[in-house]
Amino acid sequence: MAENKNIKLFALNSNLPLAQKIADELSLTISEAEVKHFADGEIQISIGESVRGAEIYVIQAVADPVNTSLMELMIMVDALRRASAAKINVVMPYYGYARQDRKARSREPITAKLIASMLEMNGVDRVITIDLHADQVQGFFDIPIDHLLGAPLLANYFFTRHLVGEDVVVVSPSHSGVSRARKFAELLKAPIAIIDNRDNEKDTAGPSEIIGEVANKRAIIVDDIIDTGLSMSASAQALHFAGATEIYGVATHAVLSGDAVTILKEAPIKEYVTTDSINLAVAKQFPRLTQLSIGPLLAAAIERIHKNEAIEDLLKSPDNMDVQL
Amino acid sequence: MAENKNIKLFALNSNLPLAQKIADELSLTISEAEVKHFADGEIQISIGESVRGAEIYVIQAVADPVNTSLMELMIMVDALRRASAAKINVVMPYYGYARQDRKARSREPITAKLIASMLEMNGVDRVITIDLHADQVQGFFDIPIDHLLGAPLLANYFFTRHLVGEDVVVVSPSHSGVSRARKFAELLKAPIAIIDNRDNEKDTAGPSEIIGEVANKRAIIVDDIIDTGLSMSASAQALHFAGATEIYGVATHAVLSGDAVTILKEAPIKEYVTTDSINLAVAKQFPRLTQLSIGPLLAAAIERIHKNEAIEDLLKSPDNMDVQL
Amino acid sequence: MAENKNIKLFALNSNLPLAQKIADELSLTISEAEVKHFADGEIQISIGESVRGAEIYVIQAVADPVNTSLMELMIMVDALRRASAAKINVVMPYYGYARQDRKARSREPITAKLIASMLEMNGVDRVITIDLHADQVQGFFDIPIDHLLGAPLLANYFFTRHLVGEDVVVVSPSHSGVSRARKFAELLKAPIAIIDNRDNEKDTAGPSEIIGEVANKRAIIVDDIIDTGLSMSASAQALHFAGATEIYGVATHAVLSGDAVTILKEAPIKEYVTTDSINLAVAKQFPRLTQLSIGPLLAAAIERIHKNEAIEDLLKSPDNMDVQL
Amino acid sequence: MAENKNIKLFALNSNLPLAQKIADELSLTISEAEVKHFADGEIQISIGESVRGAEIYVIQAVADPVNTSLMELMIMVDALRRASAAKINVVMPYYGYARQDRKARSREPITAKLIASMLEMNGVDRVITIDLHADQVQGFFDIPIDHLLGAPLLANYFFTRHLVGEDVVVVSPSHSGVSRARKFAELLKAPIAIIDNRDNEKDTAGPSEIIGEVANKRAIIVDDIIDTGLSMSASAQALHFAGATEIYGVATHAVLSGDAVTILKEAPIKEYVTTDSINLAVAKQFPRLTQLSIGPLLAAAIERIHKNEAIEDLLKSPDNMDVQL
Amino acid sequence: MAENKNIKLFALNSNLPLAQKIADELSLTISEAEVKHFADGEIQISIGESVRGAEIYVIQAVADPVNTSLMELMIMVDALRRASAAKINVVMPYYGYARQDRKARSREPITAKLIASMLEMNGVDRVITIDLHADQVQGFFDIPIDHLLGAPLLANYFFTRHLVGEDVVVVSPSHSGVSRARKFAELLKAPIAIIDNRDNEKDTAGPSEIIGEVANKRAIIVDDIIDTGLSMSASAQALHFAGATEIYGVATHAVLSGDAVTILKEAPIKEYVTTDSINLAVAKQFPRLTQLSIGPLLAAAIERIHKNEAIEDLLKSPDNMDVQL
Amino acid sequence: MAENKNIKLFALNSNLPLAQKIADELSLTISEAEVKHFADGEIQISIGESVRGAEIYVIQAVADPVNTSLMELMIMVDALRRASAAKINVVMPYYGYARQDRKARSREPITAKLIASMLEMNGVDRVITIDLHADQVQGFFDIPIDHLLGAPLLANYFFTRHLVGEDVVVVSPSHSGVSRARKFAELLKAPIAIIDNRDNEKDTAGPSEIIGEVANKRAIIVDDIIDTGLSMSASAQALHFAGATEIYGVATHAVLSGDAVTILKEAPIKEYVTTDSINLAVAKQFPRLTQLSIGPLLAAAIERIHKNEAIEDLLKSPDNMDVQL
Repeated sequence: MAENKNIKLFALNSNLPLAQKIADELSLTISEAEVKHFADGEIQISIGESVRGAEIYVIQAVADPVNTSLMELMIMVDALRRASAAKINVVMPYYGYARQDRKARSREPITAKLIASMLEMNGVDRVITIDLHADQVQGFFDIPIDHLLGAPLLANYFFTRHLVGEDVVVVSPSHSGVSRARKFAELLKAPIAIIDNRDNEKDTAGPSEIIGEVANKRAIIVDDIIDTGLSMSASAQALHFAGATEIYGVATHAVLSGDAVTILKEAPIKEYVTTDSINLAVAKQFPRLTQLSIGPLLAAAIERIHKNEAIEDLLKSPDNMDVQL
Repeated sequence: MAENKNIKLFALNSNLPLAQKIADELSLTISEAEVKHFADGEIQISIGESVRGAEIYVIQAVADPVNTSLMELMIMVDALRRASAAKINVVMPYYGYARQDRKARSREPITAKLIASMLEMNGVDRVITIDLHADQVQGFFDIPIDHLLGAPLLANYFFTRHLVGEDVVVVSPSHSGVSRARKFAELLKAPIAIIDNRDNEKDTAGPSEIIGEVANKRAIIVDDIIDTGLSMSASAQALHFAGATEIYGVATHAVLSGDAVTILKEAPIKEYVTTDSINLAVAKQFPRLTQLSIGPLLAAAIERIHKNEAIEDLLKSPDNMDVQL
Repeated sequence: MAENKNIKLFALNSNLPLAQKIADELSLTISEAEVKHFADGEIQISIGESVRGAEIYVIQAVADPVNTSLMELMIMVDALRRASAAKINVVMPYYGYARQDRKARSREPITAKLIASMLEMNGVDRVITIDLHADQVQGFFDIPIDHLLGAPLLANYFFTRHLVGEDVVVVSPSHSGVSRARKFAELLKAPIAIIDNRDNEKDTAGPSEIIGEVANKRAIIVDDIIDTGLSMSASAQALHFAGATEIYGVATHAVLSGDAVTILKEAPIKEYVTTDSINLAVAKQFPRLTQLSIGPLLAAAIERIHKNEAIEDLLKSPDNMDVQL
Repeated sequence: MAENKNIKLFALNSNLPLAQKIADELSLTISEAEVKHFADGEIQISIGESVRGAEIYVIQAVADPVNTSLMELMIMVDALRRASAAKINVVMPYYGYARQDRKARSREPITAKLIASMLEMNGVDRVITIDLHADQVQGFFDIPIDHLLGAPLLANYFFTRHLVGEDVVVVSPSHSGVSRARKFAELLKAPIAIIDNRDNEKDTAGPSEIIGEVANKRAIIVDDIIDTGLSMSASAQALHFAGATEIYGVATHAVLSGDAVTILKEAPIKEYVTTDSINLAVAKQFPRLTQLSIGPLLAAAIERIHKNEAIEDLLKSPDNMDVQL
Repeated sequence: MAENKNIKLFALNSNLPLAQKIADELSLTISEAEVKHFADGEIQISIGESVRGAEIYVIQAVADPVNTSLMELMIMVDALRRASAAKINVVMPYYGYARQDRKARSREPITAKLIASMLEMNGVDRVITIDLHADQVQGFFDIPIDHLLGAPLLANYFFTRHLVGEDVVVVSPSHSGVSRARKFAELLKAPIAIIDNRDNEKDTAGPSEIIGEVANKRAIIVDDIIDTGLSMSASAQALHFAGATEIYGVATHAVLSGDAVTILKEAPIKEYVTTDSINLAVAKQFPRLTQLSIGPLLAAAIERIHKNEAIEDLLKSPDNMDVQL
Repeated sequence: MAENKNIKLFALNSNLPLAQKIADELSLTISEAEVKHFADGEIQISIGESVRGAEIYVIQAVADPVNTSLMELMIMVDALRRASAAKINVVMPYYGYARQDRKARSREPITAKLIASMLEMNGVDRVITIDLHADQVQGFFDIPIDHLLGAPLLANYFFTRHLVGEDVVVVSPSHSGVSRARKFAELLKAPIAIIDNRDNEKDTAGPSEIIGEVANKRAIIVDDIIDTGLSMSASAQALHFAGATEIYGVATHAVLSGDAVTILKEAPIKEYVTTDSINLAVAKQFPRLTQLSIGPLLAAAIERIHKNEAIEDLLKSPDNMDVQL
């Protein structure tokens, strides 16, 4: 698409390597924008080239430091809108605050909705994201939201390694993630099991039971986010005690906050399979952690959207797997 | 609250008996409004008394005929706003279209969000509802939404009948309802099981497996809605074959569309326990169907809201059960 | 226009034959969309082909069942917007609730405005309609509304049958419709008369006087809507007693609700001339009822709009009549 | 109401005498606001006393100079909103631009809607007005609009002078005003007639016919606005030639622009009966012009609104007439 | 650009000569629109040619009569939007009310923001203006605003007349205009001085001191607006007494209200250099007043915007001066 | 005001000591809210007591870490709105990003407006702040904004120390701050001078000239913000070389970012006088830095606002000074 003057890619600071991969896939150059962070914490953005009438794709994961990443994005969009960009598409490989998507208790905010409202108010025309914590977050927007899925990519990884069928079990680490696990299991033609901890919304490890058969099976724990690692680790321990022969941990988004790396290293998990939706510092990378790139998927989505083509088939699993989510 | 001139209750057509119960609980008279349905299908509303400066509660389940019920509500709110009502609270015991809360496939609407947008655009100040299909629907609103729970009332029914503890199992009829079942099980200190049918979002009966232990247990299938009855019936059959000794069906909202009554009558379920959130025609009532009234709960919520008191403790289970959801 | 990939026509359920006529005129195929009505009354829509970047025309009369037709339209628009349609044009041959366009009494809604607000809030870019009950309804919208006129087509029908000049009289069946009758009379170079019933806003038949000369004239009663038929029937009777020699009934929109067909058949009217803005069930059709098709007019409007050409001359009477409204 | 600190009346420049009458009726003092008009035409407003938390009534007819009157109002509302007024009610005895309420031809504005949108956007909470050109203009607003009627006051003037019954005829000077005339006639139990000029929307005098009986009757021409006087004058001439014995001209709003006074003086009209909705310069007043004050009506409306009481009965004719519009 | 059918220029009444210059520069014809002013002060606009899908530039200075000019613009935009214009750009060479850009005292409006809100609410897509009183007014808009500068043009006038360097002094007539003077001085490589009158926001002449060296220098007083002329005149007198050898007065916008011309003629100023942003009546022109045309600058901006090219270099001084603002 | 149940104060994290001072002044307790910062940077807020129907004041300086402080505020407001707070007032002693109030160059954002839009969109009812960088930022809001002034407090400090009159000079460190300096000088009846550095918007130190007399005078440099300290330091050096006998530095907001403390300590300034609008870490405090508390001023403003009393006189200087700004 390199010849197309009308499309421009901008990358903010939270995940530059992924942005570069997307640009490379599209044979586009990332457009210039200076993003300064002053000593007092304020951000100043200055766009380096004309964007009049252009279709813009701004790539920014709203990831740690989440508030700063979000404000970089908001300020960039304000600048783009005032500079007469024709269409502002936000590519958000990680949607921060997505887990705060409902009032769990009285007098709590719904921050995932707040983020959506902020983007819409600011003049964003579309959001492209992947594996939202709950599908309902799509409804927090009135603008189109192209919601991609990591499952085809992640499941294919196991498929090509022959982790399929009845001696595999896909495990949901929480009650609220059972549908996600069920869909993943479908791709691998495997049964499911559920870690039954009492308060499944907390990212903590407590004593837990397992519902479903896991003994003598290879277990794949499937979640959307690995944050503190506690949930993944506790689930693995429970599976280990219950006789699972091999344990894998899968999640699209590797937040790995706090002591997560230490916790994950100590957990009885053979391999963690995630994506590069969040840019991981080198210190957070370790041999058992595999990061598959969603760059090609996002690039393909951008190309389809730019050409007004359907993205439907990007939601399907690869041909060799031949299953649609 | 009868002496209070400033609060007015209106009841539209979809659930008049419940509205009357609420009014009785509050010692209020339902205010006058003429709702005509013309031969061409158009609705005309004329409010019979001044509402200037009044705090209004309009009671309307958005239930079958769902589009007409919704339009009655929309037109009533338009009339109230133009007639200078100070505050318009909508009491919606059943939120129609709540299941269309995300794009399951490409190019689908998110109708639950559309309903929310319609109400907000029309000047509604607050929505009071109960047991939304997904908690995230709260975030479809920017106005306050008071989301009540049916579980304390429903669980207490079983608690007082001694269906508690380890020989009871609470069963989720689908993957997406596991959290709901888990919370219900907590109130009864019981374990859970899950009906594992492939495509859990469809309200259809297919061959299904059960995850979790159910043999020789008294099983309580817990859902939010009984619509066609197919999901409830198929779940019961699966549980029956798997050796459950006694099976109960629980759901807050009894839609009972199509042949539901026939299907439910034929299912191996001892008793259905629901609420009166939807007004059931006499033809749809049958001996094994118990309807607990949410009138007192809604009345208590209205009173608290009117007095600016917290409704938090209305979300708790009764004192004898002493468990908070 | 068949070669144009960028324009797509969708037809919802209320007037499929008219939609087909429009499509045929434009040599376009109606695009695929599945519109399901569940047993509980909820509507589910799934659009069958990509609409990204397309200019959409959704054809839907908001006619009986009016609330369901309206919700079909609202849900379709929600789906189109979320699916990234570039421009959503609503072709609404009949605008339900248009008669509720003002507060006739205290504490009534203005439902015609509510409909306009619902469409705008939902992201509709334009409405194309014909013969609104009051021209002022145009001002209920902030988006462009292309308001077509049925009079050139209807008047031409009489013109070609030589019902013109001083021995014809155009009759308004109510006080509020005099301007409409006057314009129609202009096209036929005929005088006017008015049925003077006391409460002219009600669609009822009461004792009425006639203002103006009708004796020994051929009378054409001109209205926008025939709903219950009572107003048309009573007007005809009054004209008959007053010595009109031949009586015709004209209205763009044939709602024909309740017993209208019986009433109309019994009225001393030689012929009813209407359009196909509303799809009439076969049971509602009868020999003296002529339906002229507005399909070509709507198709021409769509073509002009698509090509950014003025529609002004579509509002003129045919060349042979040579009069502009 | 003088003791009430919470209500404040402001009067802008277009109709100060009426504002004073309203204040006197309410025993309120008009609050201080300095309205400067600079040499370059800009208006500067400075409110002279605190309005925090107060319920404000701003009295301003949007009358000649109409654009300046409107901007005075807009700027005042901006100042009030920013100064934390609790509720901003606009009392607009004359709604300028109300006649531009629809697109009569292609590519015209709907300025009456524009005015409504400007007021709403600016934070106005309510509009109180009287005798809008078309009732549908109410629907241009989403905020409450209290629409008062001049007919009871004006008709009572004739009633007390015994102009009632069959030897009186109420005449509509145009096709679009027939409903207004019919309602007025009802109050006087009189028949109606219509001036049938071809292009009834233009305020011009052309050759016209009369529909209905006027010979040997006392005729009362009823309109909403007397602007240039041409329509009133031409109607009177037609009635005179047709044998009316005595002719009266009635209109709520006396704009009297251009040469209107000269034209009206020369017309065969015995007396003009209008209201003080527009402040008439002394030079525009003449003996045959009677101005009834709507001050008491507006004051009563303000008092009711302030006390949250219905205004319904203000729309009725006086008790001695005992007829409701 | 004459061949481009898609762009249309409209000119309202406040500055037709400038509009013509712009059209000539662009080789475009001004499109037809009839703007009537009725005897009662109401404006009626009718657009004479189709604007469907067109990119519109409406040229209107919001200058004396400022409220009427503004309403002409608002009504025109309403008509354009309803007539399906694709994009409405407002070219506003003079932004009336721009000086009311903050609350100087309690309970004042911020009318400059009100104007911005009115335009945005009405559907304007972009505003093109020049030398706003305060740069912050840009932030009153959420739509793009292209803010041009008069300084390069005005400074070049002095540059080519060799008024540059240390024996020139650029003088700010008020405290709030020092930044403007400093930027102008930069272009002429000259020092600055400030007239230090106590209440610098009033356009009045009081006793004033000068801060900075002006004796034996050629002084150029730089302001954005000359309104009553008092500030310019008082500044000149102060400079004259302080020994300035030659005094020039510069301002982009020549309002010249009230007695401004007399005052300016009497002031010890050799030449006034302004632009044609406001159309000056012949009676307001006098030999010492030079008006440079901003027509070419605005035409260039329109051309760039239409072609989606950056306008950045239009903000630079001419090449011979080689300085950027 | 302690007895008032209806008013509630909340304090977020950025300036707790000031919040406590305000609460103490008002004899109110700060209400409970738990603000958690998770390891991944996300903020979670849970309000500890009912806020239904309450008038809320949230105290939060949008200061370093500015993005986190802003998001704390946004999330808190979301929670308050959803929890049915009646009125949400934001007390923002420091308005972060206020300096980004205009596009200084092409394609820059106007972040100060973005902040305003974010707060308004979120349902904030009022903002109370102090010494905005530019007064025009008030116009970025449509909601009421109570803009307090630090000058009376700060000037009084010098007044009571007898730094008044002609041997004092108030110095503006930049061209854009001259109005601020002039107002401050007025309070001290002193002349002014200006530091004339070329690019006055940058917070950098360059060679600079002084306009105005400073030799042998006691100089008070007056700014709104001390950020990096470079501007203050460079101004002081220039004044020192120019012969000022004693130099003071004044600014309402002490940001003191980066090496500011070191720079300020080394500058030839005898005393810095600021306020506690921003909470200064102990490490940033030093003997020559005096912080006057604006707690009493903010408390008085809250009390007036709560009682619907004017705050006008809070903008005046203390009685002993007897000067109004």
